[in-house]
Formats: sequence, C-alpha cells, structure tokens
Amino acid sequence: MVRLFFYDRACSGRFTHADGEFSVKPVKVGICGLGTVGGGTLNVLKRNAEEITRRAGRGIEVAQIAIRSPKPQYDTTGISMTSDVFELVNNPEIDIVIELIGGYTLAKELVLKAIDNGKHVVTANKALIAVHGNEIFARAREKGVIVAFEAAVAGGIPVIKAIREGLAANRINWLAGIINGTGNFILSEMREKGRTFPDVLAEAQALGYAEADPTFDVEGIDAAHKLTILASIAFGIPLQFDKAYTEGITQLTTADVNYAEALGYRIKHLGVARRTEAGIELRVHPTLIPADRLIANVNGVMNAVMVNGDAVGSTLYYGAGAGMEPTASSIIADLVDVVRALTADPTNRVPHLAFQPDSLSDHPILPIEACESAYYLRIQAKDHPGVLAQVASILSARGINIESIMQKEVEEQDGLVPMILVTHRVVEAQINEAISALEALEDVVGRVVRIRVEQLN
Amino acid sequence: MVRLFFYDRACSGRFTHADGEFSVKPVKVGICGLGTVGGGTLNVLKRNAEEITRRAGRGIEVAQIAIRSPKPQYDTTGISMTSDVFELVNNPEIDIVIELIGGYTLAKELVLKAIDNGKHVVTANKALIAVHGNEIFARAREKGVIVAFEAAVAGGIPVIKAIREGLAANRINWLAGIINGTGNFILSEMREKGRTFPDVLAEAQALGYAEADPTFDVEGIDAAHKLTILASIAFGIPLQFDKAYTEGITQLTTADVNYAEALGYRIKHLGVARRTEAGIELRVHPTLIPADRLIANVNGVMNAVMVNGDAVGSTLYYGAGAGMEPTASSIIADLVDVVRALTADPTNRVPHLAFQPDSLSDHPILPIEACESAYYLRIQAKDHPGVLAQVASILSARGINIESIMQKEVEEQDGLVPMILVTHRVVEAQINEAISALEALEDVVGRVVRIRVEQLN
Repeated sequence: MVRLFFYDRACSGRFTHADGEFSVKPVKVGICGLGTVGGGTLNVLKRNAEEITRRAGRGIEVAQIAIRSPKPQYDTTGISMTSDVFELVNNPEIDIVIELIGGYTLAKELVLKAIDNGKHVVTANKALIAVHGNEIFARAREKGVIVAFEAAVAGGIPVIKAIREGLAANRINWLAGIINGTGNFILSEMREKGRTFPDVLAEAQALGYAEADPTFDVEGIDAAHKLTILASIAFGIPLQFDKAYTEGITQLTTADVNYAEALGYRIKHLGVARRTEAGIELRVHPTLIPADRLIANVNGVMNAVMVNGDAVGSTLYYGAGAGMEPTASSIIADLVDVVRALTADPTNRVPHLAFQPDSLSDHPILPIEACESAYYLRIQAKDHPGVLAQVASILSARGINIESIMQKEVEEQDGLVPMILVTHRVVEAQINEAISALEALEDVVGRVVRIRVEQLN
Repeated sequence: MVRLFFYDRACSGRFTHADGEFSVKPVKVGICGLGTVGGGTLNVLKRNAEEITRRAGRGIEVAQIAIRSPKPQYDTTGISMTSDVFELVNNPEIDIVIELIGGYTLAKELVLKAIDNGKHVVTANKALIAVHGNEIFARAREKGVIVAFEAAVAGGIPVIKAIREGLAANRINWLAGIINGTGNFILSEMREKGRTFPDVLAEAQALGYAEADPTFDVEGIDAAHKLTILASIAFGIPLQFDKAYTEGITQLTTADVNYAEALGYRIKHLGVARRTEAGIELRVHPTLIPADRLIANVNGVMNAVMVNGDAVGSTLYYGAGAGMEPTASSIIADLVDVVRALTADPTNRVPHLAFQPDSLSDHPILPIEACESAYYLRIQAKDHPGVLAQVASILSARGINIESIMQKEVEEQDGLVPMILVTHRVVEAQINEAISALEALEDVVGRVVRIRVEQLN
C-alpha cells in the first residue's frame, strides 16, 4: 500500500516513482540578505529538502542570493551570488523573493520592485509590514502576487496562520502576546534572580539576545510592530502602527516585581489588542497577569500569544519567538503556501490581512486614555495616620473600586510606607486623574507607580 | 482609504459595495447530525455570517440538515430538513457535506457516498479518520475532493493546520498532547483536591464531561484515535490506529499523584509520538512531566499539544479540546479552507496527511516493548534491611540507571515501605524484565507500579 518516492537531492526537479517517472520543475527563490535568518533558511531548505518536497509536491531551489559581502560560513555551492539586490528582484528566473535585509527604505523599494516584476514575496520584516504594509499589500493585489509574513511575528510560531485561517469562524474579542523575547528574558531574570533591569540588560547584550541599541526591544517598539500586524488580521482593520500605545520595561523595579508576586501576579511585557464597542485598544506595556495563567509561565526568550474568539474561547500559541532556524521555519512554511497558491485563483487566496481588502473595518483605534484595564498602584506614603483613608477616598470619589490592598512596613532607608493597591477595571483617563490627586496629597512622596493588570481568562 | 462592504444577511449572495454591486453565490453546505457540535456549527455560521464572509470572500449557507428527530432548540428557518442522510449527500445543490453523526459504519458509508457524488466533506469524527482514513482519503483523491478534519483532534485548537502547514519546513522529532479533556479533568481534580479516580469520574459523568460508558475516554481509545491522526501528519506515515499502544488512567492512585508531586512532576494522560531510527513510537499512557513545563500546567478539560521540529524547536498549542462552539470553530475553519480550494488546482492542495500521498513513508510503528522512556516505579517492600540494595542491584545488573529515589516511612495499615524510583531512559522490554525480577523478590509485596516519565524539553 505504501510507496516511497525519491527526491533527487540535486534539485533537478526529477522525481522517480514506483510507477515510472515524472518531472515537476522546482520553484526558484532568491534570498536578499544572508544574516542569521537568511543563513537559517538556506540551511533548513537544504537539510530538509526531501521532507519539504514530500509536503509541497514540488522542490524549492535557492537560485540566487544577494549579499553585500561573502559569508563563507554558508555553503552556497551552485547558487548565483550578487551584491545587488535589484539584480535579484529583476532576475526573470526567480519566482519568489525572500526579503531579509530589514529596515524600511531599501527593503520597501525592493519589495515593491519585486511585486512590480510579478514575483511573490516572503518577508520577516515586521517594521516594514507594520508601517508600509497597507501600501505593499495594495500593490501586491494589483499585481496578483502574495506577500507572506508569518516570520514577522513570534518567530517560528505559526500564529498568523492560526488567526487568519484556523480561527476564521470567530469574532475575535482580544489577543495578548509576549512577542519580544529580549524583554521577556529580562523580566524572567528579574523575577527569578532578583536582578535589576540594567544588570540583566547588560547580560542580554553580552549573550546576543539584545542589540547594542536595545531601544526597539525594551521600549516596546518591536512588540508594537508585531501587535499592529496581529490586530489587523484579528479584527479586519488596516495596519495603524502610528496609533499603537507603547510603553517599555525600562522603569520596572525589582520591588514591583516582588510586590506583584506577593499579590499572586507575574509582570510580563504584553502586547494587548481588544475590540470594544467604542473602538480597538492597541497597547504595549508591562502587565500584571495572575500567576496561574499559562502565559504568565512563559519564561526566558520564549514567545506566546493568547487569542480569544467568541466561538473557540481562549487559545494559546507558544514557541521560539526569534532565532536562526525558528524564523526560517516560518519563512519556509510561507514558501510552501506560496508554491500551492501558484495554481489557485488569485482572487480567492487567503487575504493578506485575513479579511477581503474591500471589507476592512474603519472601527477606530482608541487613544490610551480611552482604554480600560485594572491597575496596580504603588504609593510611597509618609508614616502618618489617615493616609490610607485619604487614598481610599480619592479613589472612591472617582468610582474606582479597590480589588486588593497591601500595606508594607515602614522602609528603613526613607521612613516611607509602600502602599500597594490593585483596582477593578476602569478607563485610563479616570486613573490618570486619580493619580494626579494622589500625588498632590501632602503625605504622598514622589510619583505613584502604575502598572496595568489583565486577567486573561 | 477604508471601505466597508455589506453582506446581505439573508444569504442571497448579493454584495453591495461603494463602487457598485456584484454577485457571488454562497457555497451550500449540508449538515448530517444536529447534536451539540452540529447545533454549535449552525449557531456560529449564523451569528458570525458577516465576519466569516468578510474573510472567505463568499457566503456559506446551510442548505439542508439531516436529523432523525426535530431539534426545536435550533432555529432552522429556511433550511430544508430531512431524516435521511442519503437524501442530503445526494442533494445536487450541496457543495460540502458536514459529517457529525459519529461512529464508523453509517458515517463511513455516507462520507464515501458524498465523495462519490463529488462533494467535499468536513468531519469531526476522529474514530472514522483514525480507522478508515486511508481508504477515505484515497477515494477523495480519485474524485478530486477534500476531506477536512481539523475538528477531529483537540476541538477548537488549529493544531492540524499548525503541523500540516505551519511547520512544513520541519522534520518533526516528536509530539505529545493532552488530547482528552475528560481524562485531564479527572487527573486535575485528583491532584488539586486529593480525590480518587472513581469519585471524580462519577462527578465528570454528572457534569456531562464523561459519557455513561467512559471507556473511550478513560482507557485512552479516544486519545489514541487523535494521536494516530497527529502522528500521520507529523511523520508522513499512513494512519495505523491498530498499532497504537493504549493505556488508560483507571489504575492511577492518589498516592502516585502525590509522590509524583513530591518528586517535582505532574501526572498527565499523554499521547506521545516520536520518530526514532528504528521506527515510530505511538503510545497513550499516564506520564510524569516536570511540573515547570507549560503542558504540565494545562488543567481541567483543556487540551494542549506540544510539537517539536528540528528547525522550530518545541511549540505548544492550547485551547478547548471539545464543546459545542470550540468544535464548530474548527469545522467552519475547514469550510473556509474548502471554499478557497474550490478554485485551486486539485493536485496542488495541502495533502490530507500533510505529505503527498505517493510519498508516505513505511517507517514502522514500534511495538511498546521497543519504545524508550524513563520510568517512575513504586515498590511496596517489607521493612527489612537490605531491600534497597537488592532493588538497586537488579536495576544495575540490567544497565538501568536511577535518576532519583525516595523512600517513605513505614505505612501504618500494612507495615510496608513504599520505595519510589525514577530511572533514566531505557527500552521498555528492559524495564519489564527488571520489574519481573523485582516482583519475584521475597521482600517485595504485590505488583510494582510503573508510570512512564517524559521530559518534554
């Protein structure tokens, strides 16, 4: 019953078969940029050529690579090399262009040129898609080609596919993700070892988890790029990166990590997108999550995305969010999808943003002041009687209910009493107003620390 | 920039548009069986008609339902009703048949008839696919139709899609899943509340989580059906349910649950499939998992599947494994996929078992005696000096290394000493031989309890 079929490793496109022999030409791809991810893609395409061809029904051959300088660590035997990415995107032999050079300017130019040349594009460039995706997808539709971007969000986790296809029956209510491995590594170390933010950041940089300029990771910009993409495919809205609220983890202290723990929470740097009647919340910030939630237990550089749909309830997708071969895994999955789509009706493909381009919604992105969440507040108060009553009265006057409260002993070094509160859900503008009033109290010293809280049921 | 497009809820197939008007006829589906899942499918298709159409680019209309007796709780206005499933599968109006009657005999007959009639099929019937899938898929290929079965494994979690498409770049090394919600509910209650197996089973039956005859769930047959399917799409092998090893949870005691906990493990009922040089392990059994693994913290009726690929590493997919609307979520996702595939080259679709049918591998399924794992052993010994030495010598003589050991105090009721061991990895035949030798010792009373241990890194 079972027949084996043998794939000629030399990528000649010949298949031999118990029944005879037939020919299917391999699809020819070009890789722009041979950094970590490009190298991983080359390695996996070679190592798993047989397995991938057995799935796709057609070989995938790397025909050309464009790089600025040679990379002797990769075996590029038999592959045409060029230092000019435009030579590659203009190469008539190439069916699919893999864009891995990163950044906005040159990457955008070459992706648009590839599209104009009728080539499909696979990219891992989250910044490019989040910022210029609407324009790129419009051009791709005009030309009848696909721009695939699974690798742009959460590395090897097939979360774009899960939301765009696997949950197609659902009205998505919300999603929340740990989508920056560097940030999660730092927070995991702070919690597990009581280390400070600058201390762990320095180690992450030494380990190569964090860039020399860590701004994109620790200020939440990278996460906001990914969240922007996830929100579009979940809710059927155009990409609107400029409207995402972004708050980093640089101000987090071990004191807050420990107080959160004592209250039964973990602090994670989350991207949260939620659909409400008034609009869509799109926000990246440190977040307290109940410690017993699966996502609260995602540690180190790993990523995870929770997606809640009205039919399916809450689902979670977990895996490596970055790295050489995990990212290559998503790029090659996209290649296989494109290979299949080559013989499908171009008007009947999975739409770039999950919803038919003419049916995107204009439901607005809410400003952060209109977003709703529960809040963790840490107030440094003088050790005077009546402070708690003043605090409680400021909150209750604004209709803000307290979920739990923890008052610590007087701290030796400054004689102040840390007072920690968790509120019920309230609109951000209201908590801002309450915090101003709290900071104006004579017995409250310095700024009130505020961290959002999500239950993620 | 954003235009809204309005879908006529009456499913007339007309779309109005800012630019004018065009017509796309909705796809017509028939539902065989209107139990929990059928009702959920009907509800979600109605409630989310607009969202689903905005994604699929085409409406999905339930044209006919076949049920034995009317179900007044569902609104079937405008839908043709019949008590004869064959009237439905012979209905020339219907493009896609949804099979939800369950079982093997009638379900198989109607699925084959639908295929012969050139209709695509969507099913949630794991038993049918695991046992008759090879025959059904062969017939479907002949006729150029799709048989989709995402709902057959892990309810609403899009894990078939994740493995078959999302991880297409990978050589899958192993997968392990909590794929039976009833079993996981029972084990979660035993651990959290110290309850016994029969006690929790009775409650699960009262809550409707377990059938009146719970054999399929608690003996692991349901999990083995699902594991058989997952293994085929992961490794590119034909479905071989008859070769799966199946062990239930009926013999598990709270004592073992507690000892496992003390050793840093949780006991879960897992389906495990692993590729080795010699063949493929395919086994369902209670398993100790280190307590800090994400999958060890999946509780209650929830499901989760870990998949480890050579490029991506370990990934995990979590969500509701059963229930009315979670299962409907997967059925409708399959419908949308089929709608898209209607205009694609039939020879270039995602293959039923992930790999091209002519390229399935004949790598054999290993008998359980040839499978390898670590083992938890509980030995009830008389309180005599020298027993530990005898035990240790039996294991070491067979090359079985001990990872950890825990000797408890003498138990009051029987004067015996429970001795708990965790071994390193070893082939099952070897541990069987060692257990026989242990049970033959004069100071060992009764059977040695043996539970497999997996690290799942």
